[in-house]
Amino acid sequence: MKVKSRKVAIIGSGMVGSSCAYSMINQSISDEIMMVDRTYDRALAQALDLSHCMDFTHTRTKVYAGTYADCGPMDVIIITAGANPKPGQSRLDVLEDAQIITKEIVTPILESGFDGVFVIAANPVDIVTYMVWKTSGFPRHKVIGTGTSIDSSRLKTLLSEVFSIDPRSVNGYAMGEHGESQFVAWSHVTIGGKPILHILSQHRERFQQLDLADIARKTKDAGWEIFTRKGSTHFGIGSAIAYITRSILNDDHKIIAVSAVLDGEYGQSDICIGVPAIIGSEGIQELIELNLNDEEMRLFNASCNIIRSNIEGLAEV
Amino acid sequence: MKVKSRKVAIIGSGMVGSSCAYSMINQSISDEIMMVDRTYDRALAQALDLSHCMDFTHTRTKVYAGTYADCGPMDVIIITAGANPKPGQSRLDVLEDAQIITKEIVTPILESGFDGVFVIAANPVDIVTYMVWKTSGFPRHKVIGTGTSIDSSRLKTLLSEVFSIDPRSVNGYAMGEHGESQFVAWSHVTIGGKPILHILSQHRERFQQLDLADIARKTKDAGWEIFTRKGSTHFGIGSAIAYITRSILNDDHKIIAVSAVLDGEYGQSDICIGVPAIIGSEGIQELIELNLNDEEMRLFNASCNIIRSNIEGLAEV
Amino acid sequence: MKVKSRKVAIIGSGMVGSSCAYSMINQSISDEIMMVDRTYDRALAQALDLSHCMDFTHTRTKVYAGTYADCGPMDVIIITAGANPKPGQSRLDVLEDAQIITKEIVTPILESGFDGVFVIAANPVDIVTYMVWKTSGFPRHKVIGTGTSIDSSRLKTLLSEVFSIDPRSVNGYAMGEHGESQFVAWSHVTIGGKPILHILSQHRERFQQLDLADIARKTKDAGWEIFTRKGSTHFGIGSAIAYITRSILNDDHKIIAVSAVLDGEYGQSDICIGVPAIIGSEGIQELIELNLNDEEMRLFNASCNIIRSNIEGLAEV
Amino acid sequence: MKVKSRKVAIIGSGMVGSSCAYSMINQSISDEIMMVDRTYDRALAQALDLSHCMDFTHTRTKVYAGTYADCGPMDVIIITAGANPKPGQSRLDVLEDAQIITKEIVTPILESGFDGVFVIAANPVDIVTYMVWKTSGFPRHKVIGTGTSIDSSRLKTLLSEVFSIDPRSVNGYAMGEHGESQFVAWSHVTIGGKPILHILSQHRERFQQLDLADIARKTKDAGWEIFTRKGSTHFGIGSAIAYITRSILNDDHKIIAVSAVLDGEYGQSDICIGVPAIIGSEGIQELIELNLNDEEMRLFNASCNIIRSNIEGLAEV
Repeated sequence: MKVKSRKVAIIGSGMVGSSCAYSMINQSISDEIMMVDRTYDRALAQALDLSHCMDFTHTRTKVYAGTYADCGPMDVIIITAGANPKPGQSRLDVLEDAQIITKEIVTPILESGFDGVFVIAANPVDIVTYMVWKTSGFPRHKVIGTGTSIDSSRLKTLLSEVFSIDPRSVNGYAMGEHGESQFVAWSHVTIGGKPILHILSQHRERFQQLDLADIARKTKDAGWEIFTRKGSTHFGIGSAIAYITRSILNDDHKIIAVSAVLDGEYGQSDICIGVPAIIGSEGIQELIELNLNDEEMRLFNASCNIIRSNIEGLAEV
Repeated sequence: MKVKSRKVAIIGSGMVGSSCAYSMINQSISDEIMMVDRTYDRALAQALDLSHCMDFTHTRTKVYAGTYADCGPMDVIIITAGANPKPGQSRLDVLEDAQIITKEIVTPILESGFDGVFVIAANPVDIVTYMVWKTSGFPRHKVIGTGTSIDSSRLKTLLSEVFSIDPRSVNGYAMGEHGESQFVAWSHVTIGGKPILHILSQHRERFQQLDLADIARKTKDAGWEIFTRKGSTHFGIGSAIAYITRSILNDDHKIIAVSAVLDGEYGQSDICIGVPAIIGSEGIQELIELNLNDEEMRLFNASCNIIRSNIEGLAEV
Repeated sequence: MKVKSRKVAIIGSGMVGSSCAYSMINQSISDEIMMVDRTYDRALAQALDLSHCMDFTHTRTKVYAGTYADCGPMDVIIITAGANPKPGQSRLDVLEDAQIITKEIVTPILESGFDGVFVIAANPVDIVTYMVWKTSGFPRHKVIGTGTSIDSSRLKTLLSEVFSIDPRSVNGYAMGEHGESQFVAWSHVTIGGKPILHILSQHRERFQQLDLADIARKTKDAGWEIFTRKGSTHFGIGSAIAYITRSILNDDHKIIAVSAVLDGEYGQSDICIGVPAIIGSEGIQELIELNLNDEEMRLFNASCNIIRSNIEGLAEV
Repeated sequence: MKVKSRKVAIIGSGMVGSSCAYSMINQSISDEIMMVDRTYDRALAQALDLSHCMDFTHTRTKVYAGTYADCGPMDVIIITAGANPKPGQSRLDVLEDAQIITKEIVTPILESGFDGVFVIAANPVDIVTYMVWKTSGFPRHKVIGTGTSIDSSRLKTLLSEVFSIDPRSVNGYAMGEHGESQFVAWSHVTIGGKPILHILSQHRERFQQLDLADIARKTKDAGWEIFTRKGSTHFGIGSAIAYITRSILNDDHKIIAVSAVLDGEYGQSDICIGVPAIIGSEGIQELIELNLNDEEMRLFNASCNIIRSNIEGLAEV
């Protein structure tokens, strides 16, 4: 018997894929990372650049370029191809692109014999995750979209600044579509375990400047604010992917808001959307059903409708 | 200008003090650790043993033995002396011991010119923290007892096993005395942001074996269960101290249940007791007042009374 | 397919075994740690105490108590039982003890179906490693003693203080027996890649106080200096074990001075002794044969003779 | 007294600067990072993107955008502006650019009252480091160029693949100009402490494919190989900067090949060039003078001449 290395392939070696790899190396999350790209030379360049970090980090991670055919023995495959939008694309263009990307990528991966967990960051992430699930025929727990994990992190960062506390002492989720129709489940946001709604009613004066609708809007728009200023958003999402991947590889059972296939949860089925889930070595170990209040349920259902209409639009493509 | 090293002194180099140092080295929490002990040779032996770890860790921590007179430039001083009980001691013996220890330690530290933050793990921790505060004349935010931080961690570990999730996805506190009269603030315990009371009412059958009173009892007795089996409990508490210290040194503003001097919070004053607090570079940045329910408030006040009677007993010693 | 957890069992849950576990938890080296002890309750107490650290660390490590029968699926088994001497024991007593311990431990582990890598810290480590190799019938690369890894670390710590540099910028080995007959291979000690012998001849005045024989003596006696002052040495050796284990689990291929079975290397065979080796997922990937100078070869052979005479004495027990 | 935060400013928030920040966040190297850029919006976008990683990392790092005027309280200032070449630039163009950048950046930083350590990654790094030293009037130990740190890491990565060992078990340096005239100091390259020249003469057959000149060439060209394939090289250099910065902030005294001002070392003065140096809280604590052999000294002097001619060319600009 030989110890089995923890292997991860990253499909798409642009800004998101390479940032994710860099984060994984710096945090020693896996033993091997294989970079895969439509342009092999780009995957190779990223692998080389990343491999030169080894002398400066704590634990060795072997980084190399590979192809879909090499994906068989991977534990986790991360799909980042097309994670950032291109200027001037219509919604339909994006969906078509996503459909092509998915097929181009998932089919050869399946042919390689891959039988691990998919982590999807490609956008529109709820749609692509759904498409990967359908195309792969995998059980739903093995297909995870990054969903609102990054939006939830942005929410925590914003609240950590308002309340001057560590972001990890905030708990809460942005839920729904990783897009316009997402919402913050304020009924379940806590600061050090204390519901934010309690805090606001108790300290009305101190936090009178605090406007939850404004925070929710900033959470949703944060990616766009970054995108318009530097043409890409990759560090936050790269870290989110690394975090999900570690929870799988170490069987951590962390609870993270991801895009998951619903099968009756929240009264919805046959759709991928952002909800909190327990992430472990089997992928999604279980979905968490929060007791959303009426307004939150309304927003959740509205978000489902939007995703569903996109999926249907897609079918007609 | 030269970068200022982050310096920590650990008073008492028995199991708790040395475990704490070991954890800090393994996590690169400070740049220097000074071990101080009534028996200089023991401090020296611990410092030597710990210094031999450097080749095997990521970042260098300088570990050395020192005396109270060297405490002036420290950022944080951790008092672990007398953290474990001796067999056959009565409550009064313990209090007397604590009083002697405190004076023997705090007076020479103050004479060294120390002006940083005290972290107290010596037991009975709520009493000793109070005594250090009184003796030092420091503002209350600079005197922190480990309080129910370790009990809260035990609570999370227990719940993480019941619910099969990462302990860091549980939020909740054991509050009150780090001792018999502590209680779990169930109204504020959440699993992935979802109140545990919701979970239990929603999934009555699935968790019918789960008895909250039993979990609270196990939380309180966990230290004793360990102590009777190996004569000491040091890893958990060592990690708790390291965690508090990092939140100070890095100005993390994490929310941790510590023993703090109350000044009106929860309707109590002139007492040290376990409550959640924001920990940063000034020590306690702010206390968190949870909206405890009536039963929890009753338990909190009862716990205050017990601590207060001990403080009063002490005055008469 | 489910990601395979990296599992480690620690046999003997005294100071060395539990310190090693604590270091592994703080550094996230494995996913699971099973504590095993002749006294089950002690293993349980250590596992409980260690499990309460989780809230304060970065990654979850599941710690639990187990028995030899549970050792089958482990990747690495660490034997620490009897790592510290008992007062008043003769050499022969120790050897007899070691023989009993080995048989009591190795036989049931083999019966459990274990097929991973043994890491031995029990003393006298070169003898016990040899005995485990013989008893197990394992190929030599799967039986690793901690050997002079800890002595090499002590050497680096001492030199790092003399030269005021990071211990990890020193390279060099204590070799031979982990005991009296060990020696420093000065011909291969470098400071930032520069041979120490060059430095001393170049900067005669600056380092005129530096006495290599004295450093070698301090390296050898460091354990004893600690032992006489606190009755145990456990942090340094605990870290050494954790370091070797990580190099196995992550397939790091670090070069570490360990006690290895020689088969012709350095002109010796059928013996375990401290030499540098490449440590990876198969255990010892390869031994490094340094070009020792004549004096060093003489010391190496003398050390082999001492170990061999002990092995022979053992056969007669 | 309040614990002093460790503060770092990164000037230039392109690929190199932002990758460096990302690495520092993932490794918890400083408490605060201030991003500064000619285009404030770009600095802001990077700071925002980086701040969204906090929920996914271990320790909090505060990341924000700032200006030169905010540089006063920084411990370390990293200059990455212009680290990557622009297509079609002549050597003279580059030098002129460097001169402008240096003045534009260093002057306002000095006006802010900054009195810490400069770490320079801007290219041509040996020239820019020299210019920053001259312009700032700082003592030479407070101006550090990344020099051949990244080339040395590439060398180790290449050798780690050839010998199948951990890159951190290789010791050795690329020295001289971070550019065409650099060379590998083979006389001081060791694998696990064993000189590579010994290994090759001992195992002639096994390593007959190994061509040291080829390795040296690949080391030198690695950056270019990456650059031509993806238009930038940033992960390796970002990690090198983070590593140097940590050795300063933690006073690690690691030995790293950096671009340093020589003052008699290696028979050279008034020049910046890549040599091994001890890096600590004062910046360069000491330079290491290796006993280079005749051929290596010839290459070193030749490299000095090339740098010097560039500096002189610059004076005439």
